[in-house]
Amino acid sequence: MSTKIFHHLGSSIAVALFVSTPAFAQELPPIFPGVTTLGERTIPAPVGLSPEMIEVVRERQIPPVIPAPETTEAWLEFQALFDAAGEELGRQAAEFNEVTYEVRDIASVRAYVVTPKEVDEGWGDRVFVHVHGGAWVFGGGDSALREAVWAASGLEVKVVSVDYRRPPLHPFPAAIDDTLAVWREVTEDQDATKTALFGTSAGGNIALATVLRLKELGEPLPGAVFAGTPATDLENVSDTWLTLQGLDPLGAREGMIAGAIDLYVGEADPSNPLLSPVNGDLKGFPPTILISGTRDLLLSDTVRMHRALRAAGVVADLHVYDGQTHGDYMQNLLRYVPESLDAQKELYQFFNEHLE
Amino acid sequence: MSTKIFHHLGSSIAVALFVSTPAFAQELPPIFPGVTTLGERTIPAPVGLSPEMIEVVRERQIPPVIPAPETTEAWLEFQALFDAAGEELGRQAAEFNEVTYEVRDIASVRAYVVTPKEVDEGWGDRVFVHVHGGAWVFGGGDSALREAVWAASGLEVKVVSVDYRRPPLHPFPAAIDDTLAVWREVTEDQDATKTALFGTSAGGNIALATVLRLKELGEPLPGAVFAGTPATDLENVSDTWLTLQGLDPLGAREGMIAGAIDLYVGEADPSNPLLSPVNGDLKGFPPTILISGTRDLLLSDTVRMHRALRAAGVVADLHVYDGQTHGDYMQNLLRYVPESLDAQKELYQFFNEHLE
Repeated sequence: MSTKIFHHLGSSIAVALFVSTPAFAQELPPIFPGVTTLGERTIPAPVGLSPEMIEVVRERQIPPVIPAPETTEAWLEFQALFDAAGEELGRQAAEFNEVTYEVRDIASVRAYVVTPKEVDEGWGDRVFVHVHGGAWVFGGGDSALREAVWAASGLEVKVVSVDYRRPPLHPFPAAIDDTLAVWREVTEDQDATKTALFGTSAGGNIALATVLRLKELGEPLPGAVFAGTPATDLENVSDTWLTLQGLDPLGAREGMIAGAIDLYVGEADPSNPLLSPVNGDLKGFPPTILISGTRDLLLSDTVRMHRALRAAGVVADLHVYDGQTHGDYMQNLLRYVPESLDAQKELYQFFNEHLE
Repeated sequence: MSTKIFHHLGSSIAVALFVSTPAFAQELPPIFPGVTTLGERTIPAPVGLSPEMIEVVRERQIPPVIPAPETTEAWLEFQALFDAAGEELGRQAAEFNEVTYEVRDIASVRAYVVTPKEVDEGWGDRVFVHVHGGAWVFGGGDSALREAVWAASGLEVKVVSVDYRRPPLHPFPAAIDDTLAVWREVTEDQDATKTALFGTSAGGNIALATVLRLKELGEPLPGAVFAGTPATDLENVSDTWLTLQGLDPLGAREGMIAGAIDLYVGEADPSNPLLSPVNGDLKGFPPTILISGTRDLLLSDTVRMHRALRAAGVVADLHVYDGQTHGDYMQNLLRYVPESLDAQKELYQFFNEHLE
């Protein structure tokens, strides 16, 4: 090994292992000037997962980039097709978990009231408010049951799930307006401080935005918030959308998801904190729990939100599951997955600690 | 788009966006049967970083895989070469941060006693115990000052840093024995519950192992622990070693780091919890704070340890910085980096909350 290479390697490792110094870096050629190209590589299943979660990994399908529909009609057709599968799964999940539900009109918004088989004594007859995910465009109707059932049965609490108006017909801020309307109705009879507001993915985005809207309006805030792998920056493409592409069955941001974001944002400014909560004034935000995974395309969005909350002095707990992709914590809808039970336990403990 | 492809895509997205079901997966070809190949891709600098942290990203050097030395003499030569750079940086860091230090013999172990310019009133004259990183083989002597200075100046507390015996001459459990000896001496005069034990990378591994050893022995445990991007599984290669390879200047586990692990493990079983703390009996473990980044090769090791601690009912806080690589939180040794100040603040708050 030549002295020069030896020195190069030594410095590189010194930079890496032992905290870098600009002095070293300047001696070296710019191998990584902010932009890097990653070569092809083969990735085995993660170690340290339960056998049940390994099975989930083995079943994974990584789709190709899906182009966004180009017309409103094509979007509606896509929406109906996707939601049909989700609705069937939602109903199956309700049956499998012995959860009952009814559809109600709450403040002129369609909503699901989901009652678990057993209600935890501590919660009594209170309800939590849920906002479903599905890239703003999808996941409505009975599809919303999937997440609502997961929460209701996992937390043993009654859940009201907002079937908010969606693009392509109803862009921002319709979803937030609908969530706000249901929230107000629920908290007429129940202290806001006793009430959790939560959602996953786009639902996490809308839940966070609704809290920011309540803050703006000076109305009572939830006692606790759960933002599961939330989209928190609709203006910029956070890092893990790119670094983890190929590992997460969510696929990619380009194509259909970018199209869905455009539809939802509509004529608004995507940097608006009600669209990109990471930009919000978070002082006084309620205690918030965030969950993601090391193969989750929204890991960066999640940890950026966590940091923003912590910077504002907010009680905010982060849980990252190894090897999990977007929303994987809900993999126990129709089967036993210990990591999912663990996530439900974390959620229960957090709500139990922070809700009055 | 053919009906078949449409159905395929619809199902894939349903799986991804809205929680998968095995029924869907079985209809699809096994695109991702546990093992996947990631194609070449180009990754820009992460969004949402401070200008100072963007500068760090731009300076990054991703080294090639470095082969492990093959003889004890070659290891010793490598060790001396690497440490020379680290030692210089350690002394610079002490000067830049106006920290003073002296070398002492504590319980027959070489140690650094590091005193910050200002001591926080709340800490008074107490000391925290630090275990340096550097892949078990490197980072000794004045190199240890880098991390010790970072902690002492960031927390405004006096720090004792253990200059433990290292491979190739001293494999496991010498490092733990030395840390234990210093710990016992420090906690003769100061309640263990008032004392933090902490380290980064291999130092996090040794710190966690030392607490497990104290547990085994029934001796008083630290009041709080900080494990920064710790190695927690020396038996298996955790996922992010592979998924994030190419993004982190730490390089790769294969080659020199694997060689260093082999040297440290020696004749022991790498699944031994004192080598792989993720396997430990963690019930009753002290409150622990863990820090990592979304580009950190040890992100998986970190979050797996966090989950193991939480599963044992331990108070454990996780902080993951977007776009950061292994140990990046210490990037403010010789310059201003707001994310690093934020990490120091989190650490201060955690210790302040949990130490008596």
